[in-house]
Amino acid sequence: MSKFNTLREEAYEANMQIPAQHLALYTWGNVSAFDPDEGVFAIKPSGVPYPELTAGSMVIVDLDGNVVEGNLRPSSDTPTHAVLYREFAVKDGAKIRGIIHTHSTYAVSWAQAVKPVPLFGTTHADHIQTEIPCTPYLSEEAVKNDYEKETGNLIVEHFRKLKLNPDEVNMVLVGGHGPFAWGSTAAKSVYNAAVMEEVSRMALNTLLIRPDAESLPKYIVEKHYLRKHGPNAYYGQSAK
Amino acid sequence: MSKFNTLREEAYEANMQIPAQHLALYTWGNVSAFDPDEGVFAIKPSGVPYPELTAGSMVIVDLDGNVVEGNLRPSSDTPTHAVLYREFAVKDGAKIRGIIHTHSTYAVSWAQAVKPVPLFGTTHADHIQTEIPCTPYLSEEAVKNDYEKETGNLIVEHFRKLKLNPDEVNMVLVGGHGPFAWGSTAAKSVYNAAVMEEVSRMALNTLLIRPDAESLPKYIVEKHYLRKHGPNAYYGQSAK
Amino acid sequence: MSKFNTLREEAYEANMQIPAQHLALYTWGNVSAFDPDEGVFAIKPSGVPYPELTAGSMVIVDLDGNVVEGNLRPSSDTPTHAVLYREFAVKDGAKIRGIIHTHSTYAVSWAQAVKPVPLFGTTHADHIQTEIPCTPYLSEEAVKNDYEKETGNLIVEHFRKLKLNPDEVNMVLVGGHGPFAWGSTAAKSVYNAAVMEEVSRMALNTLLIRPDAESLPKYIVEKHYLRKHGPNAYYGQSAK
Amino acid sequence: MSKFNTLREEAYEANMQIPAQHLALYTWGNVSAFDPDEGVFAIKPSGVPYPELTAGSMVIVDLDGNVVEGNLRPSSDTPTHAVLYREFAVKDGAKIRGIIHTHSTYAVSWAQAVKPVPLFGTTHADHIQTEIPCTPYLSEEAVKNDYEKETGNLIVEHFRKLKLNPDEVNMVLVGGHGPFAWGSTAAKSVYNAAVMEEVSRMALNTLLIRPDAESLPKYIVEKHYLRKHGPNAYYGQSAK
Repeated sequence: MSKFNTLREEAYEANMQIPAQHLALYTWGNVSAFDPDEGVFAIKPSGVPYPELTAGSMVIVDLDGNVVEGNLRPSSDTPTHAVLYREFAVKDGAKIRGIIHTHSTYAVSWAQAVKPVPLFGTTHADHIQTEIPCTPYLSEEAVKNDYEKETGNLIVEHFRKLKLNPDEVNMVLVGGHGPFAWGSTAAKSVYNAAVMEEVSRMALNTLLIRPDAESLPKYIVEKHYLRKHGPNAYYGQSAK
Repeated sequence: MSKFNTLREEAYEANMQIPAQHLALYTWGNVSAFDPDEGVFAIKPSGVPYPELTAGSMVIVDLDGNVVEGNLRPSSDTPTHAVLYREFAVKDGAKIRGIIHTHSTYAVSWAQAVKPVPLFGTTHADHIQTEIPCTPYLSEEAVKNDYEKETGNLIVEHFRKLKLNPDEVNMVLVGGHGPFAWGSTAAKSVYNAAVMEEVSRMALNTLLIRPDAESLPKYIVEKHYLRKHGPNAYYGQSAK
Repeated sequence: MSKFNTLREEAYEANMQIPAQHLALYTWGNVSAFDPDEGVFAIKPSGVPYPELTAGSMVIVDLDGNVVEGNLRPSSDTPTHAVLYREFAVKDGAKIRGIIHTHSTYAVSWAQAVKPVPLFGTTHADHIQTEIPCTPYLSEEAVKNDYEKETGNLIVEHFRKLKLNPDEVNMVLVGGHGPFAWGSTAAKSVYNAAVMEEVSRMALNTLLIRPDAESLPKYIVEKHYLRKHGPNAYYGQSAK
Repeated sequence: MSKFNTLREEAYEANMQIPAQHLALYTWGNVSAFDPDEGVFAIKPSGVPYPELTAGSMVIVDLDGNVVEGNLRPSSDTPTHAVLYREFAVKDGAKIRGIIHTHSTYAVSWAQAVKPVPLFGTTHADHIQTEIPCTPYLSEEAVKNDYEKETGNLIVEHFRKLKLNPDEVNMVLVGGHGPFAWGSTAAKSVYNAAVMEEVSRMALNTLLIRPDAESLPKYIVEKHYLRKHGPNAYYGQSAK
């Protein structure tokens, strides 16, 4: 019996939510679940269709991207996950225990336009207080060096440059590529990816209705975010 | 046995129509059912996923927003429902027995653009005779005072300013936020929310096909509305 | 035993295809099945949700719109069906045995823009050789006179004015309202309504990709139409 | 027992993926499976609805389009498949064992605009390194000569003119008509058609968000393509 079975189970359940929430076709997309005490995460094996996944097929990887346990090759995006856990969770102390990457339609469309998703309404503000950030394209040097690791570095640099807190802004678009999201559990990272997709869709519609649509006023953004996430949050059953 | 079981059952059935009609993701959205004799309404508990709802989990609240019966915290939008029942149903005498709030995609998109939905066709005119009204953003003062209650006040003021009859115009967009609808039963409020979503989608398409699309002539609007809702209505089996 | 049971069954099966093919929400939409020998058609009762329909609930109506058999009130659109059968099938001799009216999203969007759907590709040309016609709004006089009957008259006049053959052009948009379609059976009318919806959606997308998109050249239109419908048709198993 | 049963089974399974992946309505679309040793392919019978298909109903055809085995008439697009196998697989030696034609919504929309689908992101670059090519309309002479065969010729000429390698670029739009795709198995051709549809949808959205969206830089295109398809591919479990 592996000591990583619970972690594998969490990763497996979260990966199965990708097709359930229509966040990717075929094998496109992957979720990982992180155990900070062991310094490892469980991640989807590369290129395996969702219906063939089992908890046992999840691969255990350390933060250098080395396979610790598992018979299959881990997702090709594994080095991106490793960088994000190392930098955001371990170094910055952000409470990130799950990361997801998908190719969901509307989020990818904004990433392809290399544009952050404007903050137009409360559906968005209920989750993050800024537009959804979008990195520039990865540089040629970075791509030639170590593509997936540099994708992680690009996200981290973008967050540091914009002074974004990964505990508060838990989603990002990589320019020309697509969405990454994270959360305090693997399941919550999937939820955030679904939010990002829906908010991306609404934002495109909003622009089509009104090309000069304005951002939601700051005071409404703050109110909506804080009623769900602030010290006096009053949304849900467990709010203080 | 609570005397509110029937009301709870009605609210529960209506809430379960939100995911069935694809009107919101996850826990976004809530329906209430109002009993004017008791002066209370049953509403969805806050933040509980639809598959976990039961009739017994519906919370009974009075028109000041105080919990009368129930173990869970009511929807954070409860004060908005309370204001609408108090002002429209009790004060104005409108026959409103159910209210719904959702984050349905196309209705939210118009709300984010802070634009009323133009009345382009009979699908719309079959239900209301005006464009779907859209309030401005809530003021900073109102947001800081009592956000959800002021959202209700904003809707009421907007209706009074535009001289809209809540028995005839049973749907509204709150600018930057999203749709609210109501009806003579909780189930009918859900129906109206589904109508609003479909009509919002058709209106966006219409603008894309023809940016200068015209409003439906008044004489067709009236005909369509009256054949369903007028004193000589002849649509359906119970029409006079 | 009524002699109209087969006709009722045909109308019932076709009506149940409206929700199955996602051509309307709730009760919006109706199909009728015509028996030219008896001079009657079976049509959906007004305002009854699809899951509650039975073959027995279909109403038998003659070409003046009088109920011949049935306990329920027929669809409020019955006089439109009656006019189309009388003018196109009986008078012009077109082989029309089924008529459908829906509020499908994209077809309604074009109707609301009061624009015919351009013939951009072979998906369209496989079915009709012209753009999908769109009538103007019904006149105020006609609306005040006899709305549903005049809707039928408007379609007939539009076809005669444009010299369209209802055996070849089996679909139409009523300006500001929505789609009507017909076919040699009730089931084929539903098929044509589904084609109209899909072609309407593709045409909007095409315009978004290329606002000055050109019509499909005439020689391709003819080829595609004739390979399915011409005297030497070679599509399908029963083609000559 | 026919020696073509395995081939028929492969074609049948792949055809059933057309409705499962929502790539066509009704009977629109067909897949074939090719056996290069026997010089024949199995293809869907013309005009038969998917639920009525069986492996036994697949028609075996040779590369001149003659029926070798089967009681039904083969798809009317059979001559197009025959040309593509003959030219690309037999003559050029491309490893093509399956071909698909659909009328999927977004791919058709680009074909109707007669525009290649720009390469905006990695979802696209994971599969092909160029925009999705789009042929011009077929000429009047070609249409009048032998429509379906000339459609195949048009694709082959377009690939030769643009110096595209059919082993690398496994999808194409026929101007005014719709998508064709192929692959090393019939199942992979369906996968490529689903990719083409999703990429076509994302590209339209991208243009709506940013009309002057740029192509993905060449160095990212190459990286993404080669990590899946190059000699040192590291995506999936069977990669070298």
